[in-house]
This record gives sequence, structure tokens and C-alpha cells, in this order.
Amino acid sequence: MKVGILGATGAVGQKFIRLLQNHPWFEICALGASERSAGKRYKQAANWVEDVPLPNHIAEMTVATCEPSAFSEVDFVFSGLDSSVATAIEGAFARAGIPVISNAKNYRMDNSVPLLVPEVNPEHIALIQSQSFTEDGSGWIVTNPNCVAVPLSLALNPLHKEFGIETVVLTTMQAVSGAGYPGVPSLDILGNVVPFISGEEPKIAPETQKLLATLNNGELDEPHFALQATATRVPSINGHMISATVKFKRTPKNINEVKEAIQSWENPIAELNLPSSPSEVIKLHEEERYPQPRLHADQEGGMQLHMGRLRMAEVFDISFVAMAHNTIRGAAGGAILNAELLYKKGILK
Amino acid sequence: MKVGILGATGAVGQKFIRLLQNHPWFEICALGASERSAGKRYKQAANWVEDVPLPNHIAEMTVATCEPSAFSEVDFVFSGLDSSVATAIEGAFARAGIPVISNAKNYRMDNSVPLLVPEVNPEHIALIQSQSFTEDGSGWIVTNPNCVAVPLSLALNPLHKEFGIETVVLTTMQAVSGAGYPGVPSLDILGNVVPFISGEEPKIAPETQKLLATLNNGELDEPHFALQATATRVPSINGHMISATVKFKRTPKNINEVKEAIQSWENPIAELNLPSSPSEVIKLHEEERYPQPRLHADQEGGMQLHMGRLRMAEVFDISFVAMAHNTIRGAAGGAILNAELLYKKGILK
Amino acid sequence: MKVGILGATGAVGQKFIRLLQNHPWFEICALGASERSAGKRYKQAANWVEDVPLPNHIAEMTVATCEPSAFSEVDFVFSGLDSSVATAIEGAFARAGIPVISNAKNYRMDNSVPLLVPEVNPEHIALIQSQSFTEDGSGWIVTNPNCVAVPLSLALNPLHKEFGIETVVLTTMQAVSGAGYPGVPSLDILGNVVPFISGEEPKIAPETQKLLATLNNGELDEPHFALQATATRVPSINGHMISATVKFKRTPKNINEVKEAIQSWENPIAELNLPSSPSEVIKLHEEERYPQPRLHADQEGGMQLHMGRLRMAEVFDISFVAMAHNTIRGAAGGAILNAELLYKKGILK
Amino acid sequence: MKVGILGATGAVGQKFIRLLQNHPWFEICALGASERSAGKRYKQAANWVEDVPLPNHIAEMTVATCEPSAFSEVDFVFSGLDSSVATAIEGAFARAGIPVISNAKNYRMDNSVPLLVPEVNPEHIALIQSQSFTEDGSGWIVTNPNCVAVPLSLALNPLHKEFGIETVVLTTMQAVSGAGYPGVPSLDILGNVVPFISGEEPKIAPETQKLLATLNNGELDEPHFALQATATRVPSINGHMISATVKFKRTPKNINEVKEAIQSWENPIAELNLPSSPSEVIKLHEEERYPQPRLHADQEGGMQLHMGRLRMAEVFDISFVAMAHNTIRGAAGGAILNAELLYKKGILK
Repeated sequence: MKVGILGATGAVGQKFIRLLQNHPWFEICALGASERSAGKRYKQAANWVEDVPLPNHIAEMTVATCEPSAFSEVDFVFSGLDSSVATAIEGAFARAGIPVISNAKNYRMDNSVPLLVPEVNPEHIALIQSQSFTEDGSGWIVTNPNCVAVPLSLALNPLHKEFGIETVVLTTMQAVSGAGYPGVPSLDILGNVVPFISGEEPKIAPETQKLLATLNNGELDEPHFALQATATRVPSINGHMISATVKFKRTPKNINEVKEAIQSWENPIAELNLPSSPSEVIKLHEEERYPQPRLHADQEGGMQLHMGRLRMAEVFDISFVAMAHNTIRGAAGGAILNAELLYKKGILK
Repeated sequence: MKVGILGATGAVGQKFIRLLQNHPWFEICALGASERSAGKRYKQAANWVEDVPLPNHIAEMTVATCEPSAFSEVDFVFSGLDSSVATAIEGAFARAGIPVISNAKNYRMDNSVPLLVPEVNPEHIALIQSQSFTEDGSGWIVTNPNCVAVPLSLALNPLHKEFGIETVVLTTMQAVSGAGYPGVPSLDILGNVVPFISGEEPKIAPETQKLLATLNNGELDEPHFALQATATRVPSINGHMISATVKFKRTPKNINEVKEAIQSWENPIAELNLPSSPSEVIKLHEEERYPQPRLHADQEGGMQLHMGRLRMAEVFDISFVAMAHNTIRGAAGGAILNAELLYKKGILK
Repeated sequence: MKVGILGATGAVGQKFIRLLQNHPWFEICALGASERSAGKRYKQAANWVEDVPLPNHIAEMTVATCEPSAFSEVDFVFSGLDSSVATAIEGAFARAGIPVISNAKNYRMDNSVPLLVPEVNPEHIALIQSQSFTEDGSGWIVTNPNCVAVPLSLALNPLHKEFGIETVVLTTMQAVSGAGYPGVPSLDILGNVVPFISGEEPKIAPETQKLLATLNNGELDEPHFALQATATRVPSINGHMISATVKFKRTPKNINEVKEAIQSWENPIAELNLPSSPSEVIKLHEEERYPQPRLHADQEGGMQLHMGRLRMAEVFDISFVAMAHNTIRGAAGGAILNAELLYKKGILK
Repeated sequence: MKVGILGATGAVGQKFIRLLQNHPWFEICALGASERSAGKRYKQAANWVEDVPLPNHIAEMTVATCEPSAFSEVDFVFSGLDSSVATAIEGAFARAGIPVISNAKNYRMDNSVPLLVPEVNPEHIALIQSQSFTEDGSGWIVTNPNCVAVPLSLALNPLHKEFGIETVVLTTMQAVSGAGYPGVPSLDILGNVVPFISGEEPKIAPETQKLLATLNNGELDEPHFALQATATRVPSINGHMISATVKFKRTPKNINEVKEAIQSWENPIAELNLPSSPSEVIKLHEEERYPQPRLHADQEGGMQLHMGRLRMAEVFDISFVAMAHNTIRGAAGGAILNAELLYKKGILK
């Protein structure tokens, strides 16, 4: 399928380009960015910050403005747009009949837009039918969650199914790549911890609740657990770490019952063999010093969820840490997995 | 007063030497370390890692073994000993009639040994009378808490007095200096987060409860709140950050009542004007991005407690972050403040 | 004396404010910044990044635009202006009869403007007489050098006097604070080395040659040695490290003769006892692992030059490393020392 | 071929294990380490620090002592031994008829031992014939150079062939992985630069001269250029950066002639298509901010040499920076490439 990238020069856009190299199904045919970049070759418009070379054929592509007319030949677009412009542009593409697989936050909480993590809530793709961007249903939007809600929902999902989430207290230790480029000034973070990330904490509860919702007669039925989050920035490069303590509706007898719930969880999309799926979705580390962002974030193509420190807790029921690559599993890679699911299911066509 | 340092070549020992430079009351007269260092000049025995020059007269002092006979001229000793040897050596000094102000963990939970933070529980020094190291009471031990329990108790103390602590969930982000020297290998922590610190988590609840205990008829009456801690290591140099969510026995009406409890708290040792006391014990930051280890850990000589992000929580009552310099307020500086209190109260004499 | 700060909200401006706290001679009375900041209180206009608290009376001062009319009450100004505006603004202040002690590069290579490091070329202040900003000589400009030329000239000065510099090959490892705030993105420098700093290398040779020039009949007679520099950025916070290999006109017999030249060098301003002077201008480290930015950059108030690794070389004559705090000795602190010299000499009055 | 690893639990040993996973020609059959590890399963003996999972079949292998009798089934061994034991152990293996491909420094400067970088001096493998470890020639030793000499020789080789090296002045900025594990304490290097690496500088000139030597009638004819090196440690993880200024016997007309010499250089082993060969041996970056360790060290499997900042110099002829992955190209990966060359040439059989 022919693919366009909106916001192609930004950090998420660059990650889309990197991850789509040699993709078996999707080929990049158009790149969109702001007026300032439009008309330039990509290599001149973008400050490439990935640690693999910029592919030559992408380097020489001319960047377009983010208007549907410039993307007439694509089958769908990935959006890495900034939230300040995503509402208008993504809406315009959907209305023009071009499906949008978006990493932006703007449509995430819209009732008719799936907020999708394929291993967590694949059935939510049915919501697309209720979208009204076009009369014939050809244009629609699917989103992926915030880079904390992704690993959190992957970790909570098997536990919620078995025990029912009642309360969550968490602290995040987030990598600098989460702020894009130029992002976090080095003077702010070298040898430091910043105990606040603007706009981050309020997204975590509602997105996680929407992800764990049940779809009943076309309506989402969300679990209403309490969640208290503190989001901090630390000097790691990739991989957001979450330290969580959780209370369940049904208390596990012991930690083995909790491990059993995680290990016996069945990945609902396993049999689809999607190209970006990790072979093992949840890696549960037994070594107390693991997982670590620098050692584990890139494993299985950056698409694996890493859990560790799983133990019964003095307060509530259990504590654990969870970690995933924030710009792959938590952003561009998650969006690509969404597109792969939608393609395999015949919705992208 | 003439002072000896036990464990003088280690990271805590070096910090004692640094902080006692130009101290108005205490003068270093003897340095003790392991057999390997004994007999050498201090500058040859120690790998000085402080960012101020090693004072010349200390550099030329000869290091002794940690035996009371080598410390006959001192009035008391500070101990920065490793826990593998502290039980025997500190006990021997106390039995020899030499008071020990210790940073080691070994005697912290002993019923007759004060675990002391002068602004939190100065009255606990009365426990010294129940010690039996010597018949005449000339030898005794006072300890300071773990480097997490120090800032935690300073932060919880005014809140406990006003609202009563019932439950605490916390995650720490701890600086590498907490592991001493050589301590954390750079390959483990550069651009990384390690979600475990050996032996750290189990100390936090009991030490904090002992610190907040009431002394009734010579016995400690401890509050028995539940506390769940996850201790992580991050690539900061000095300053342990704590992210905490707390439930009280009495729920505050709003965040202002909580701020009021902190701001109206009266430092019980304020009028003593101890040399190492910060002018403002608790600095409550209003800027959401503060406190930060690199910006604030060294303020007020590294003896200040920094709080921030204070807010009502979705779970329990409130959330906040607290941070203090781990090797000054949380170790050597805290021990020196303890000695200053004991001197002013006439117990060190 | 009453002092104004131009560019007061930037990184260098903040350092001026910090260093002038409790200065015995100079008091800050006016703060100037861009249109965007003008009219605001300083605490609202500036993103304070220093690791000491912003002084209250500065926090409440109203920021003015950088026009001489807004600075009528000051005796002189320090300039931390960006080079894009410094030519016009500094010139306007000088023409208005307000002396300018500038850290900007714009006037550094002007024949009538002293490029001043007080311990290196104090006699260059005589150049002020040849300036023509005002008829009565009341307005003039004095500059301090680039943050690499400062430590380089301090290190080369005693060697040049004894042996004559003929050739220098150097590589710098520069701290992130040299790029100001927000400056270097953390994604560019965490765990990395960037082998280029825009505009840095071409300043080093001409500024160092001007600093080492002899003043003959009011004209500078510059030494014309060859210098090849590679400037790199590394993930340190403060303190630029220089690795240099040098050929002299007269080859030293051995390394002791070189050390002797450094140790017997007499600081020409020693007897002035300027408040910002370090007690020991050049600290020559014997330990091979020293100097280090994190351990030594802040010593003696950040005004000391640190040399180390001094040895005879296989190529040319000697190799050494030199390091100084780039935003104190290499910027704001150097400018303040310049002002102190000019005040003591009766030129600032 | 069946392969053993000596020093299998150390940092270099772990890298051998990682890089030999899925190798088309070599299979690991035996692991050797110190007495302390011998008899344990590898997963218990080693503290695995690689950022890919430890392969299961390796994890379960039993570690042997480093004696030839325990390696009777292997065709040859890779050695990542510490230099304190490598002389005796490697010699014993060679005498036992087991070829040794070593990363240790001990035999590097032996006249009959090839110090080998396949793209630089493949013809040096003929030296093996002059070794006398065994009568039948079945046991011998081949070494790879120090992790600075590797990228330096790769960069200088085409220049030496065209212009003749006369003098080199260089400064290195070396990554922490070069010191192994636990290696550099984080307190020494976080936010810091250490201007000395013990034992590093003296290796660079002799190893580089041996690598660039011509083999005449079985004797090495070494170029005798002067080289002055300063080796520093910086807080990067992988990738040693070299900043070099070079004088040639024949001065290039301009920088294009230098580029031409690099670009027209022919890789003497290109046609062998060795599995670990990079497709492009020397990547010459045109962007001034490149190469960077974090962005480029892993490219082409960590086996590529990256050059940049190539320019005519004020002193000597040219300056440039060169960078390569220190533990892959500069250690284990280089040794594996050596083995591949020796296998393809029929010497390993």
C-alpha cells in the first residue's frame, strides 16, 4: 500500500520513516510538513536524528504541505503532527477520504475514534463504522495512545481481565526522546531529575480507561478505577519506566497467581502474525535489577513490553515496574502495528 | 571538641572531612580506616573524590586502625563505617567510653539507640540513658537514618502531626553518590534507570516509623502506617528524589490546609542556632518543575529539604515530591547536625 | 558603583546576577533585555537556571529595554548580549557615555578595544584612550575573550614569556553551558560527543594572539604563531577542557624547566587584591587523572585555571591539558574581574 | 568451525558471544574463565550487560578453566583474556596446537605475531609461519590492536599510501565501555571528562606503526613517524572519537586531493565478502556535526570507520576526526573479522 507521512520532519515522523524501511506491505510515497519545509528536499528540510542512515530515496523526496490534494496517490497516511495543527489537518484528510493512522492526541478521546493497542483492544476498530467524516466511510481516523498509556495498558490488561483494576498509583521516569527534538535542553536534564512533564499526567487515566473498555453494542463501557500519576523526566534516551502499585477488585492469593495471569494471557492478535508484532509481547523479568531502558528498550524491534519487580505490596495488592520504548512501541511503531491490524482485517484496503 | 572519623577513606568519611573544615566546635584529630590503609598518610590511603581540595593538614595525617586505643585523645567519633564491620567496631568504641555518632545502619533499629533527625525527633536523645555500653554512661551510640528516610521523615513530620499518616506509596529516584565509591558502574547507569537498589526498600518503613515515634516514659510509641516503596537509581550525582502519595487519618479540606500545616510547622531546634542548621528547613517550591537535584541539592549547605508538586490526589489524599542531598543531609551532614544537637544539649561533653 | 546588566535574562546575564550578589563594590540597579521581556518583573521574564535561589530584590525588579535612556542612573553596564544585537546596543551605550564591560564577541577584535584577561594583559587597558565613542572619553568598551581563549591564554602566557609560542595544536572538550539556554538539545549530547561547535574554532587563534600581544606606543604587536583547533562538545555541565601540544621558539631542556616557568610566573595584578581574583591563579595538578571539570571547575569561585598532564611531547615540545569554568572565568566572572581592575585603576569612576 | 571463548565472562567475552550468534561459519562450543567461574553455568558466572538477551544455550553451558585440555574439541579460540593472565594462557593454547585469535595486548608487539586489521595489512598473516609454538605449525597466535589504533590505522592507511605519514598529533575522547565492567565508576565520569587513561597512550604509536608496516622478505618494515597522543575518557557509552592533525611527507594540493585518496582507496579484502565486513569500510561524513558516537557507532554492525571534519590545517597538513565502535570494530568484532580472513585464506582449518 502507498503511504504518506504527515509531520514527516519531526521526531515521530523520522521514526515512521525509519521503521517503514523494508516494510513488507507499506511504501512511503509522500511526505508532508509545515509551510517552512514544503518544497524542500527532505534531507534539507529535516534534521535527521536517527542512529541509522537516512535512506537515499527518502532524502531526495520533495516535502509537500499537509493538504489532501498533495496526497492523492496514497492509500492512507500516518500522522506524527503536532497537536497544535492535528485537529484541522487530520480532519481534512479524513473528510477527503484518506484514512489517518495518528499518533497525535487530538482525536484520542473522541467517542467514535478507536484508541488502539492491538494486543489490548483490537475489537475497538469496530468504532470506525460510527465515524462520519465521509458518507461512504472511506475516510476515518484511528489513534494510538500516549507513550505512558501504551505500556501501562499492556501491563494492566491481563491483570484487569483476571482481577479487575480498582486503584493505581504510579510514578513515571521518562526518557528525553519523549519530548521530541530539540525537546529537553541538556542543561535541564544532565545529571538531574525534573519532577514534572507538562500535560502528561492528565492523559494517563482517561486513555488507559478507554483502552481497557468493553465494547457493548457499539458503545464503550469503561472501567472507572482511580489512578494517581506523577510524571518525571530523567536522563535516559529511550524507554519510559513506570513504577506502579495496584489494588484489584479481587485480591490475588499470592504473587504466583499474578504471574500466572500474565503468563497465561493470550495475545488476541497472535495468529495474525503482523510484521511489527513482537514474538513475545510481555517479557516478565525475574532479575530484580531488570528491566532497564538502555538494555531492553530496543529488544524485539522496540515493540516489547518489559515488566519486572513484580511483588505483593504492603499497600494495595501488588507493585511492579513496566517499561517500553516510548517512540517505537509508544508512538510510531504502535501506529504502524495499528495499520497492520487494520490492513489484515480488511479495513485498510 | 576533638573528633575522630571511623571509615575515613570512604565516601562518607570524605564527606565528614569536607564538612568539618572550619567547623566552629569540632576539630578532626584522628582518622581510622581498614588494615589496608592503616599506617599510610591520608592522601595516599584515600582516593579523594570531593570537588574541593583535600585540606593539607588532613592529607598529611597518618591513618590508624579502627581501635579505641588509637583514638584516646578524641572526645567522640563520627562513623562512616561499612555495615559489614560497624557492629563490632562501633560497639567497641562505645564500650571504651567513646561516644559514636554513626551513619551506619547497624544500630539504627536498636531500642535504646536514638535514630535521630534533630528537627523531627530531638527528644529521642533521652534514649541514650538506657544504653549499657559503659557503667558510667560515658560511651554510647546515636545514629542517623538511611538517606531516603531522612527526607521522607522531614516531609511527613509536619503532616503527621496535623493529619496523621495512614498509608504511603512512594517511588525514589536516587543519585549515584548514594552507592559510595567506586559504587555504581558507569555502564549500568549512563542514560539508564535501574529499578532496584539492594537492601534499600526494607529500611524505609521501619526507620521512618521510628523517627515519627512518640517517646512515652522512656519507650518509643511508633505509628504503624503502611508504606510501599520502590527504590530506583537514576543518573544524577547528588540528591535523592521521592515521589509520594499519602493517605491521612484526617482528610485535609484542600491543598491550602496542607500547605498551611507545612508552613506553620515550628522547627523544635530553631532557637539552638546549630552551625549546620539550614535557615529554612523545608523549602516548599511552587514551580511545578522544581525541586531538581542538580539545582537544589546543594542549597543551604545541602541541609535543606525540598518539597514540590504538592497537590490533592485522585487516590488517597495528597501527592508530592521531596528531595534532599543524600550524602550531606542524608548522611554525613545529618550526623554532624546530630553531634551539634548533642553538644548543645550537654550530652557530648 | 551602580551597575546595569544588558541581556539580563540570558544564561550569561543570570551568571552576572548570581556573581554580583554581595559584591563589595558593585550593586545591580537596572536590568535590560529584549522587547519581549521589557516591562515584566525579572522573575517572570527569566527562566532562572542557576543552582542558587534567585535573590528576591532582583526577582521583583522590572526589566527595561536595552536603551541608554533606561540606564541613566548606572555608572556602567555589563553586557551579556547576544552577538546579533551587541554591535548596535553596546555602541549606543558607549556613545551615551556609559562604559560597557562586555562578554559579547562583537568588539573583541576592534583595534581600540581591549580584549582583557587581567592576569595576562592588564596594560592593554591603555587602549581605551584611543576609543572615540564620546568626545570626553566617558563612554568606552572593554571585552573579555571567548571561553576557550581565556583558559588558553592563561596557560600559554607564562610559557610564551619564557619560551616563545611557535605552534599550537589543540582539541577542546566543551561543556553544554557554553551554548547558553536552551542551548544544546539533550538528544544531541546525552552519551555522545559532537565534533563541531559552530563559529568556535575561528575565534581561538586571533583572540589568543591579541591577548598575548605587547603594547608598543599604543599599538598592539601580536605574536604570529600557528594554531590549529578542533572544538568538540561533550556531556559535561561546566568547565571547558583543552588538550594542547605546543612548539616553542626555544626548546625547554626538560619538563622541570617548563614547570618552573609556570610556577615562577608572577601575577601582575596580585597586589591589587581584586575581590574576584583567585588566591592561586594557575593550579598545576600533578595527579594524571586531574584536572576534571566536575571536581575542579568551581574551585576558587570558578576563577582558577587548572593545568595538568604537563609532559614533554614526541611532537613539538610539550603537551598539557587546561581547564577553567566556561561561564565564570570564561564569561561573566571574567567580565567582573575586568571591571574590578578598571575600578581599582581609576578608569571606572 | 567449533570455537572456544577464553575470558568468556568479561565484557569482551560477552561481546564475542553476542556477535557470534547466528554466525555462518563459527559455533561456540566451549567457554573458559577464571577459577572463580569455572564449574558454574554461564548465566550464573557472568553478569550479562549486553542489550540483547543472553542466548539460552549459552546461558546453560558450563564454564571451564582456561586450560587447553578443556578445549580439546574446538578448532580455535577467541581470547578476551585480561592482560595479567594472557601471556601464559594464550601461549599454552598455542603450544597445545590450538590457534588463538586474541584481543589481549600481550603478544601484539611480538615480531612473529600478526597485529591484524584485515583492511589495512592482510598480508601480515604470513608472519604466522615464523611462529614456533608447535613444530607442525598447528598452534599460533594472531592479535588485533588497541581500540584506538584500530580506527586510527583504518583512517591513516589510505592517506599513508598516498602521501606518507610524517607526524600525528591526536586527542581521543573514549567511551566508558572501553574500560570493561565494572570499569569506570559513575561518580568519576557523569558530567565529567577525565584527561587520562592508564596505559593507553603508549600503545598507540607502536601499534599503528606496526599496522602500517610493509612486509619485506618476511620482515616488517615500519614507518617511523612521530605521534603525540592524549587519551581522555568522556561520558559516552560506545565509540571512541579521535581528533587528529597530520603532517605528510608529500603535502596535498587541497582537501579534494585528500578526499580523493580516501574515496579511491581499494579495500584489499573486498572480494572475500567476509560475513563481518561492512559494505562501506570508511564512511566520510560531510556534515560538520558528524560523526557522533551515539548516532554512528552501531552502523554496519559496528564495523564501520567514520571520518569527518576533514579539512586543511593551519598546522601540518590536515585535521580530521575518526570514530569507530570500540568494543566491536575495536575489539571482539575486529577479532572475528580476523578469524574470518584466516578461515577464508585456509589458515584456520
